Amino acid sequence: MAGGSGEERIVTAALLVIGDEILSGRTEDKNIAAIARHLNEIGIRLREVRVVPDDEGEIVAAVNALRARFAYLFTTGGIGPTHDDITADSIAKAFGVTIDVDPKAKSLLLEHYRRRGVDLTPARLRMARIPAGASLIENPVSGAPGFRIGNVIVMAGVPSIMRAMLEAVTPELETGRPLLSVTIAVDRPESEIADAFAAQQRRFADVAMGSYPRLANGRPVADLVLRSLDAERLEEAAAALREVLGL
Amino acid sequence: MAGGSGEERIVTAALLVIGDEILSGRTEDKNIAAIARHLNEIGIRLREVRVVPDDEGEIVAAVNALRARFAYLFTTGGIGPTHDDITADSIAKAFGVTIDVDPKAKSLLLEHYRRRGVDLTPARLRMARIPAGASLIENPVSGAPGFRIGNVIVMAGVPSIMRAMLEAVTPELETGRPLLSVTIAVDRPESEIADAFAAQQRRFADVAMGSYPRLANGRPVADLVLRSLDAERLEEAAAALREVLGL
Repeated sequence: MAGGSGEERIVTAALLVIGDEILSGRTEDKNIAAIARHLNEIGIRLREVRVVPDDEGEIVAAVNALRARFAYLFTTGGIGPTHDDITADSIAKAFGVTIDVDPKAKSLLLEHYRRRGVDLTPARLRMARIPAGASLIENPVSGAPGFRIGNVIVMAGVPSIMRAMLEAVTPELETGRPLLSVTIAVDRPESEIADAFAAQQRRFADVAMGSYPRLANGRPVADLVLRSLDAERLEEAAAALREVLGL
Repeated sequence: MAGGSGEERIVTAALLVIGDEILSGRTEDKNIAAIARHLNEIGIRLREVRVVPDDEGEIVAAVNALRARFAYLFTTGGIGPTHDDITADSIAKAFGVTIDVDPKAKSLLLEHYRRRGVDLTPARLRMARIPAGASLIENPVSGAPGFRIGNVIVMAGVPSIMRAMLEAVTPELETGRPLLSVTIAVDRPESEIADAFAAQQRRFADVAMGSYPRLANGRPVADLVLRSLDAERLEEAAAALREVLGL
């Protein structure tokens, strides 16, 4: 890559969203975009997202397919105290390990509930069930921890709790250089600039160029997004594109 | 199923969202929730969602995996006029068929652009490339059609265009009976009602029961959602659950 520092280490990830409520349309997912943005900022490439129902077979199959293909697999949802929360058990099954109440997770929950003056009931204790060999991810919002086993990072589905867990786990993630991007807003339909755009993509084959159409007051316009690890090369391509578009 | 009409035909579907912009966090997906709600309303069960990048190999693999497993596969994104729009070609490859400019799609585009007084340029004509054997899906918003090939329904990524295409294709879809649901809002943390909730799930094993926690002014509360095809059985389960929860 011109001007770059030679071979770049690319760190990839997938996200598995677990929950019937997303698939039924009852709940609008907020986590995909938040996780995508966060990973992009810290230099991890999110390469696939899957949403599967609260079904052990589906979760196990998706976890095993995705953890084998990507450097990291993040999951959201299904780690609460109710009977339909089956993520921890499904992850244990995917890894072929046992699952039981984890002493450290139990003491985190005891401490959390003690401060609130409520009991650690059997239902609450269910949230301390952690697959063997996993490490805990702190949950400053509601006590019950997430966990990490191998390259799989298991987080809550409630967005504010998920974000806290994602922040907590970030320092221990291996990251690459963030992909830099330049957005060029074009006040015309993408069909009008498609030929010039394709010509610049051919000229700057090492800069990924995408066109994202949208309607602005009912009129089709486009955002052209250029991406590269190399700031200099990115600016060169953006300047060339602006010039041919007369911007 | 008690009170039901015997064997129920379940019509399943998957959704494949195609686009780097979702995975980079640049664009927040709006289509998953809209499609999930629509399919739920017309009696089709959305069972899986995947998001993959603008990469032919990834698209082909996902299309072939998902169209084999579900009654329908819907896709969004990547059917515009720019070089990064590779969905139509990837679908043709997945089906092992040729792709070329479709005369009917071309005349739709000609008509659309003629009314606006603009030319059908080669870039615009690219949007008339349709895999052999596909039927067209009307696009009242911006002219360029979606298409259906076998059980795969290929739609635009711009939300207003996607919705128009989804409406257009709906009359030709085979549907089942819609899953009915009752939501019981509980003003307590789900950990407080988990035991009673699990007991009712055991009692009404044929009614799917899920708990969806959220924070209300920072306090954990939950929506309990009961789902069944059978209205009578659903009401019975909801009444029993309300009673044990003192609601």
